[in-house]
Amino acid sequence: MNLHKYSEIITSTVTELSEYESVKLLCLQHHEGEPYPSETILQEIIKLCRSLLFPGYFGHSNVNRRNITYYLGVNTEKLYELLSEQILAGLCFICDRTKYVSLEGMREEAVKIAAEFIKSLPELRKILTTDVIAAYNGDPAAESYGEVIFCYPAIRAISNHRIAHQLLKLGVPLIPRMISEMAHSETGIDIHPAATIGSYFTIDHGTGVVIGATAIIGNNVKIYQGVTLGAKSFPLDENGNPIKGIPRHPIIKDNVIIYSNASILGRITIGEGATIGGNIWVTEDVPAGARVMQSKARQ
Amino acid sequence: MNLHKYSEIITSTVTELSEYESVKLLCLQHHEGEPYPSETILQEIIKLCRSLLFPGYFGHSNVNRRNITYYLGVNTEKLYELLSEQILAGLCFICDRTKYVSLEGMREEAVKIAAEFIKSLPELRKILTTDVIAAYNGDPAAESYGEVIFCYPAIRAISNHRIAHQLLKLGVPLIPRMISEMAHSETGIDIHPAATIGSYFTIDHGTGVVIGATAIIGNNVKIYQGVTLGAKSFPLDENGNPIKGIPRHPIIKDNVIIYSNASILGRITIGEGATIGGNIWVTEDVPAGARVMQSKARQ
Amino acid sequence: MNLHKYSEIITSTVTELSEYESVKLLCLQHHEGEPYPSETILQEIIKLCRSLLFPGYFGHSNVNRRNITYYLGVNTEKLYELLSEQILAGLCFICDRTKYVSLEGMREEAVKIAAEFIKSLPELRKILTTDVIAAYNGDPAAESYGEVIFCYPAIRAISNHRIAHQLLKLGVPLIPRMISEMAHSETGIDIHPAATIGSYFTIDHGTGVVIGATAIIGNNVKIYQGVTLGAKSFPLDENGNPIKGIPRHPIIKDNVIIYSNASILGRITIGEGATIGGNIWVTEDVPAGARVMQSKARQ
Amino acid sequence: MNLHKYSEIITSTVTELSEYESVKLLCLQHHEGEPYPSETILQEIIKLCRSLLFPGYFGHSNVNRRNITYYLGVNTEKLYELLSEQILAGLCFICDRTKYVSLEGMREEAVKIAAEFIKSLPELRKILTTDVIAAYNGDPAAESYGEVIFCYPAIRAISNHRIAHQLLKLGVPLIPRMISEMAHSETGIDIHPAATIGSYFTIDHGTGVVIGATAIIGNNVKIYQGVTLGAKSFPLDENGNPIKGIPRHPIIKDNVIIYSNASILGRITIGEGATIGGNIWVTEDVPAGARVMQSKARQ
Amino acid sequence: MNLHKYSEIITSTVTELSEYESVKLLCLQHHEGEPYPSETILQEIIKLCRSLLFPGYFGHSNVNRRNITYYLGVNTEKLYELLSEQILAGLCFICDRTKYVSLEGMREEAVKIAAEFIKSLPELRKILTTDVIAAYNGDPAAESYGEVIFCYPAIRAISNHRIAHQLLKLGVPLIPRMISEMAHSETGIDIHPAATIGSYFTIDHGTGVVIGATAIIGNNVKIYQGVTLGAKSFPLDENGNPIKGIPRHPIIKDNVIIYSNASILGRITIGEGATIGGNIWVTEDVPAGARVMQSKARQ
Amino acid sequence: MNLHKYSEIITSTVTELSEYESVKLLCLQHHEGEPYPSETILQEIIKLCRSLLFPGYFGHSNVNRRNITYYLGVNTEKLYELLSEQILAGLCFICDRTKYVSLEGMREEAVKIAAEFIKSLPELRKILTTDVIAAYNGDPAAESYGEVIFCYPAIRAISNHRIAHQLLKLGVPLIPRMISEMAHSETGIDIHPAATIGSYFTIDHGTGVVIGATAIIGNNVKIYQGVTLGAKSFPLDENGNPIKGIPRHPIIKDNVIIYSNASILGRITIGEGATIGGNIWVTEDVPAGARVMQSKARQ
Repeated sequence: MNLHKYSEIITSTVTELSEYESVKLLCLQHHEGEPYPSETILQEIIKLCRSLLFPGYFGHSNVNRRNITYYLGVNTEKLYELLSEQILAGLCFICDRTKYVSLEGMREEAVKIAAEFIKSLPELRKILTTDVIAAYNGDPAAESYGEVIFCYPAIRAISNHRIAHQLLKLGVPLIPRMISEMAHSETGIDIHPAATIGSYFTIDHGTGVVIGATAIIGNNVKIYQGVTLGAKSFPLDENGNPIKGIPRHPIIKDNVIIYSNASILGRITIGEGATIGGNIWVTEDVPAGARVMQSKARQ
Repeated sequence: MNLHKYSEIITSTVTELSEYESVKLLCLQHHEGEPYPSETILQEIIKLCRSLLFPGYFGHSNVNRRNITYYLGVNTEKLYELLSEQILAGLCFICDRTKYVSLEGMREEAVKIAAEFIKSLPELRKILTTDVIAAYNGDPAAESYGEVIFCYPAIRAISNHRIAHQLLKLGVPLIPRMISEMAHSETGIDIHPAATIGSYFTIDHGTGVVIGATAIIGNNVKIYQGVTLGAKSFPLDENGNPIKGIPRHPIIKDNVIIYSNASILGRITIGEGATIGGNIWVTEDVPAGARVMQSKARQ
Repeated sequence: MNLHKYSEIITSTVTELSEYESVKLLCLQHHEGEPYPSETILQEIIKLCRSLLFPGYFGHSNVNRRNITYYLGVNTEKLYELLSEQILAGLCFICDRTKYVSLEGMREEAVKIAAEFIKSLPELRKILTTDVIAAYNGDPAAESYGEVIFCYPAIRAISNHRIAHQLLKLGVPLIPRMISEMAHSETGIDIHPAATIGSYFTIDHGTGVVIGATAIIGNNVKIYQGVTLGAKSFPLDENGNPIKGIPRHPIIKDNVIIYSNASILGRITIGEGATIGGNIWVTEDVPAGARVMQSKARQ
Repeated sequence: MNLHKYSEIITSTVTELSEYESVKLLCLQHHEGEPYPSETILQEIIKLCRSLLFPGYFGHSNVNRRNITYYLGVNTEKLYELLSEQILAGLCFICDRTKYVSLEGMREEAVKIAAEFIKSLPELRKILTTDVIAAYNGDPAAESYGEVIFCYPAIRAISNHRIAHQLLKLGVPLIPRMISEMAHSETGIDIHPAATIGSYFTIDHGTGVVIGATAIIGNNVKIYQGVTLGAKSFPLDENGNPIKGIPRHPIIKDNVIIYSNASILGRITIGEGATIGGNIWVTEDVPAGARVMQSKARQ
Repeated sequence: MNLHKYSEIITSTVTELSEYESVKLLCLQHHEGEPYPSETILQEIIKLCRSLLFPGYFGHSNVNRRNITYYLGVNTEKLYELLSEQILAGLCFICDRTKYVSLEGMREEAVKIAAEFIKSLPELRKILTTDVIAAYNGDPAAESYGEVIFCYPAIRAISNHRIAHQLLKLGVPLIPRMISEMAHSETGIDIHPAATIGSYFTIDHGTGVVIGATAIIGNNVKIYQGVTLGAKSFPLDENGNPIKGIPRHPIIKDNVIIYSNASILGRITIGEGATIGGNIWVTEDVPAGARVMQSKARQ
Repeated sequence: MNLHKYSEIITSTVTELSEYESVKLLCLQHHEGEPYPSETILQEIIKLCRSLLFPGYFGHSNVNRRNITYYLGVNTEKLYELLSEQILAGLCFICDRTKYVSLEGMREEAVKIAAEFIKSLPELRKILTTDVIAAYNGDPAAESYGEVIFCYPAIRAISNHRIAHQLLKLGVPLIPRMISEMAHSETGIDIHPAATIGSYFTIDHGTGVVIGATAIIGNNVKIYQGVTLGAKSFPLDENGNPIKGIPRHPIIKDNVIIYSNASILGRITIGEGATIGGNIWVTEDVPAGARVMQSKARQ
C-alpha cells in the first residue's frame, strides 16, 4: 500500500500527541531504572501462586510425592524474584516520598514484603481448601475436588482475591487492584481486594458478581451470579465529590445464601443464616434467618 | 535487589508447602508418563474445531474452493492427535480402574472416542448453521452471516457447548467442562456441557447467561444477557449435602423468548411460544403462549 | 497411541467437510492476495492505540518527557501500517463492488481512512481524559487517575468504543464490531460501536452492561454493572424478520445515573438528571430529575 | 539502576546518529508500503521448501501416504504467499526503474516468478535425490538415506544452493544471496548462488568450503571440508577496483574428488576423474585422471 | 498481490509432489502415534544437560547452594521425560522389528535407556571438569574457568560429544548424530559420536575440526582449528561402494598437540607426546615425541 | 510411557549432582538480586546495535528520513537499559571486591560505561562504513553496498568485534568475549575482542578465520577464509602453564593481503603491502612488499 501519501499527517499527529499539555494527565512519567507495573508479569505471578497452592493442577508440572519439593522450590524462588520487582513497581507508582527517602529504601521494603507474602502461602492454602470443599459440597454438578479446582471460575476469583487481599494488608499499592481486575476479566467476578471474606466461601457461576471494598463476609457464605454487595450512596465533600474510605458496603454474617442478581446495597447487615432471593434490591438490614424474595411477577 | 536476606523464609516455606498433609487434598498426583489436562492444548483444540466448522473465519487460513481440502485435512489430522491425548488425560484424571485395567486400554478408548468425535463434525456444522441463521435473523444490527460468525460471542459459546456436549455424550470426563468454562471466560456465557439444546438457538449479548446441567431447551429459542436457567433448591442427602444428578433445571419448549436478567429456576416447564420478561424470578410452570412480566416499578 | 486404526474415518470426514454444499454458508471464501480480518492484529492495534492515548500505562515503554516523541513516533508508524491493512480487510470483507472497482481502489481508501483515524487521536485523548476524571470522581475507592487508567475495565471498554465508533464513522465495515467484541470479552461490557456517547461517561464494575446500536447517551452519565440500554421489540418485515436500522434504543440525557441490572428498553428518553434504581425494567419515558425504583421486596 | 544521569548523552547521540550525512551510506531508505527482505521470513521459506522436498523429515508433520496431499498442499500455499512477498522485496531493493514502471508491475512479476519457482520444485527434488544417494554411498559412516537427510549439513547447504540458484536464474535479486548465507551460517559451507553444480554432488563435513560465483562443477563430484574453489586475482578497472562479472573460478569436470583444505584458484580446469590431495594450492589446470598431492612434510 | 492467476500451477505441482514414485525415497513415512526425531526438542535436551552439568552457567537459573536441588530436580525430571521420547523416536526411526516386537517394547527400552543416561551424568560432569581445566590451562587468554564454560565453543562441542557418545553406547540410533551435528552447526567442530576421546581434551578456536567415527584420542590431547582426523581411503565392496564400519581414522596417543589445519588421515598412530605442525597432511605413523612440520614456504 | 519405574535413579542422581564437592568447580554461584550474563539478552543487544549502525537493514524497521529519529530513539533507549544490565552482570561475574565495595557501586559504574559506549556509536558507524566500502570494492561478486551489509558475514563479525573491542576498552569483563563468540558461531570468524584492527578491514568468506588477542592489524588489510593470526608457543610459568598476557600474535601492517588457510604465527611482523599465499605456515617476519607462497605441489 502507498502509505507515504499521508506521512505529513502522521508526523504532525505525533508532535501533537507528544505535547506536554496534552499528555500530562494521562501519561505515566517513568523514572528510568525503576520497574513499572506489568500485567504480563502479574499474570506470571498468579500462575506461580496457583501452581504452589494447587500443585499439579496449575503450572503444567508432573508433580508427585517424590518430586514435589523440586517444583515448589523452583516456583517459589521465581515467585520471590518477580513479586519483589512488582511490589517495588507498586511502591514506585505511588512514590510516597514522605515514607521512603530513596529507591534503595523502597527496594528493601519490597523484598521484605515479598518474603512475608511467601511466608503466608501455607495459610492461604488452608483457607482455599475450605473454599474448594464449599464449592464441591454446594454444587450437585461437581464431581470431584479436582474438577472444582480445574474448572470453577469461583476458585480462580477467590484465589486471586485472597492473594490480593494479603498483599494489600502488607501495604502494597496498586498491585492488589490489578490482580483483582485480572480475575474480574477472566471470570466476570469483581471483588475489591480490600473486602474481608471468611472461610468456606463460594460463588456459583459468578458472572456479574460485585463485592465492594468495605464489604465484610462471614464464614460459609454462598452467593450466585450477578449478586452485588455495593454502596448505596456516597456522602459528598465540599466539592461535590464522594468522600473516600467510609464503610459503605454490606456486612454479610455466617451461613447466608444470596441468589442470583440480588443487589445488597449500603452499610447494612444481613443476619446469620438469612436467605436473599434473586433479582431483588435490598437496602435495609435483614434479620438473622429471614428469607427475602422478589414480589410476584404478573402475567 | 538484595533477595538473600530472607532466603531462610523461602526455604522453610517450600518445605511446609511440600508436606503431604498440607497438600494432599489440593494436589493432582500425576502418574508419570500419562498426559494431563491442559487448558493451552484445549484452546488449540477449540481453534482447530472452529477452523473446521467455519473455514476461513477462524484459523487464519486463506481458504477457497480450490485449496479447502488441504487446510481441512491438515487441521483434522492435528485435531485428531491433540484430542486423543486430551481425552486420554480426561480418562486418566478420573482413573476409573473398574472400567480400564491398563493405561493401554484407556489409550485405545481415547483414540476411538476422538475418531467418533471427528466423525460427528459434519453434523455439528449442520446444527451450528441453524444457530448462525437464528442469530442473524434475530438481530436488526447484524449485517451478514459473516459478521455473526466473526463477532458474536453467542456463536463461540454455542460452538463450544455443542463440542463439549458431544464429548460428554461420548463418555469423556472433565474435558467437556473445561471447554465450557473456556467459553464462559471468553463470553460470560456459562452453559453446562450436559445441557440439551435444540436447533436455531440464539443468545443476544450473552454476558451473565447461566444454563444448568439438566436444562432442556427446544428449537428456535432465544435468550438475552443475564438469563439464568438454574436450580431452585437441592434435595439434601443424610449428610446435608445436595444429592447429585437429579433433574433440577427448567425445560424450555420451542419458540420461547426470555428477556434479559430473568431467572427461571427449578424443574419447571416454560410452554411453547411463551415470552418471559426481563429481571424477573420464575419458579413455577408457565403455560404455552403466556407473557410473564415484572411488576411495575414505582417512581 | 495407535492413531491409524481410524484413519479411514478421518479421510472421509475431511472429504465430507470440504464439500461445497456443506460449507458454502459458513465458509469465508478468501480472495488470494487480500488481507483478512485478524483478531490477533486487532489486539495489537488496540495495544498501540492505548499506548498512544495513555503513554507509559500501556505498551511497557519507559516513557518520559525527554523520550516521549520516540515512542509515540514508532507506535504511530506501526499503527498506521497495521490499521491500513485491517481497514482494507474490512473493505474486502464487505466487498462492495458498486463502490470500489478494484483492489487498488480499496487499498487507497484504506490508507486514507487510517490516516484520518490517526489524525483524530488527539481528539480521542481529550474526551477519554474526561472519562478518566469521571471514573475517579465517581468512585470513592479510586486512589489516583493512574489507578483508574491501569485497572478500571470501564476505561478499556470506553477506549475501545471510542476507537470503534470513530472507525465506524469513517466508513470501515466489520472491524469496529470486532473491536467492540474484544472489549466485551475482556470486560463484560458490550457497547455497540454505533452508539453515541458524550463526555465524562463512566461505568462502574461494568460486567453485563449492554448498550445498543442506536442508543444516544449525553454528557456526565454514570451507569452500573448489568445495565441494559436495549431494544424492546422489533418491527418485522414481510418475512417475519426484524427490520434493520430503525432507532430502537433509549436516549439518555445529561447527568443521568442508572443503577445495577436496570433494563431500559425501547426508543424512550430518560430525562436530564434522572436516577434509575437497580434491577428494574423501564419501557416508558422518565421525566427529568425523576427517581425510579423497584417495588418493595417481600420477606 | 539510576539511568537518567546520562540521559543527555543518549539524546544527543540519537540526534547525531539520525543525521542524514552520517547515515546515508548505511541506511536502507524504505519506501512505505513495500515489503523488505527479511531473514526471519526467508528462514520460514527454507523450512517450507525442505518440508516439500523431504516430506516428514522437515516441518514436523506426521506425513504418510494417506495424508501427504494435505500437508504438501498447505505448505505449498504458504510458500507461494511468502515467496511472492520476498521476491517483491528483492525487486524493490534493487528498484530498477528502467525495468518496472510501478510497484504494481513489480508485484505482478514477483507473483509470476514465485509460481515458476514452485513449478520447478519436482525437478529440484529429483536432483536432490541424486545428492542424497551420493552422500550415502560416499560415506562409510552413513547408515541410511534418512540419516543423511536428517543430519548431513551438506544436504542442507546443497538444498539451499539449488533453491537459491533457481531463484537467481528466474531473475530475483538479493534474496538468493541471503539464502546462501543462511546455509553458510548454519553449515560453514559457502556456495555462491550463481555457481553451476551437476547431479550426485556431495560435500563431506563441509566446514570452510567456498565455491565461487562463476565455478562450474560437473556430475558426481565430491569435495571435503575446507576446500576453496576461488578466484586467483581480479583484473582491475581504471579506478583500481576489481572488474565485476568475469569468469574467475575453476571448472571441475565429472567424477573429481578434492580432499580437505585444498584451494583451487582461478579459471582453471580440473580434468575428469582427477584427485586433488588435501591442504594444497592449485592454480594451474590439472589433466583428467591426475592425482595432485602436497609435497612431503619434514620431521 | 493477485496470487490466484497462477493457482493452476500450484494445484498441479502439489499433485506432482505428492505422487508416491516421486517422493518414496525422500519421504519419512510416519507411523501415526509414534514420536519423531525433533531438532527443537533435542536443543531443549541439550540445554537441560548443560544446565545440569554446569549449573548456573546455562539455563538462566539463579542457582546457589541453598536452592540447587530444586533446579537440578526440575531439570532432571524434564530431561527424563523429553529424552525418553526422543530415544523412542530414534528407535522408531530405525524400526528394527527383529529386535522389538511392539511399540510398547520400544517404549520400555526408551525409558530404560533414558534412566541409564541420567545415571551417568555425574560421571560425565567429572570428565567435563577435566576438559574445562585443560582449556583454561592451555590458553593464555583464558581468565577464569567461568569464562571458559561460558564462552569457549570447544566446551559446547565436547559436551555435546560426550552426551552423544554416551547415548550411542547405550544403543540409541540417529539421535547421537543429530546432537553432534547441532554442535557442528553451533561451533564448526564436527566430532562423530562414535569417536573415543580421553580426559583433559581441548580444542582451541575449533572451526573446521573434523574427528571421524573410528578415531581414538588419548588423554591430555590438544588440537587447533581446522584439524582433520579423517579417513584416507575406503576399501570398496563388490558394488564399488565403501565398506561400512572398518577402523579408518587415526589413533592419537596421550599428550599430543596438533596445530591448525593439519590433516591426519587413515588408521595411523600418532605416538605419545608428538607435535604435528599446522597445514600439513600426515598419512603415516608418527613416532612418540616427534615433531612434524610443513616444508618451508618459498618467497 | 511408564516413567516411574526408574524414579529411584532420578532421585539419587539429583542428589549426587547437587553435592557441593561435585559441583563446586563448574557451578556459577549466583548472588540473589544480581543480574547474570545472558546470551539471549546479548543477542538482543547486538540486534539493537546493528539496527542503530545500519538503520533499515537490521531491526525490521520501516526507516526513512522522516521517521528515523523515532526508531533510533526507541532503540537507543532500549540498548541503554539492556546494556547497563549486562555490563553489571559482567562486573558481578568478576566481582572484583578490591575495586567495588558494593553492588550499588558496580551499578553506577555499569550505567556510566553503557552511556559511554552509546556515545561512541557514531564513531563506530564511521569506521564500519570503511569496512563496508572495502568489502564492496574487494569482491567482484558484490553488487551494492546494501548487499554487502545484508549478506556478508564479514560485516557481522567485524561489527561484533568493533562493539566488543569498545566494551573491552571501557573495562567490561566477560561480555566482550561472549559477543565475539556469538559472531564466531554465526559466521565461523573468531576474532578475540582484544585484537586491534584498523579501518577498511575486510574478510572474504571468512569461515575458519582466527585472530588472536594481541594481534595488531593496520589499515586496508584483506584476509580470506581459514586464515589464522595465532600464537606460536607460550612461555610457561614455574607450574608449566602458559604465562597470560604476553604479546604473542602477529602485527599486520597496512595494505597486506593474506590468502585462504594461511597461518601466521607468533609475534612476527608482516610488512606493509606484503602478500601471503594460501595454505602456508609463516612463523618469521615478512618484509614489506614481499610475496610468500606454498612450495609447489607434486603430481
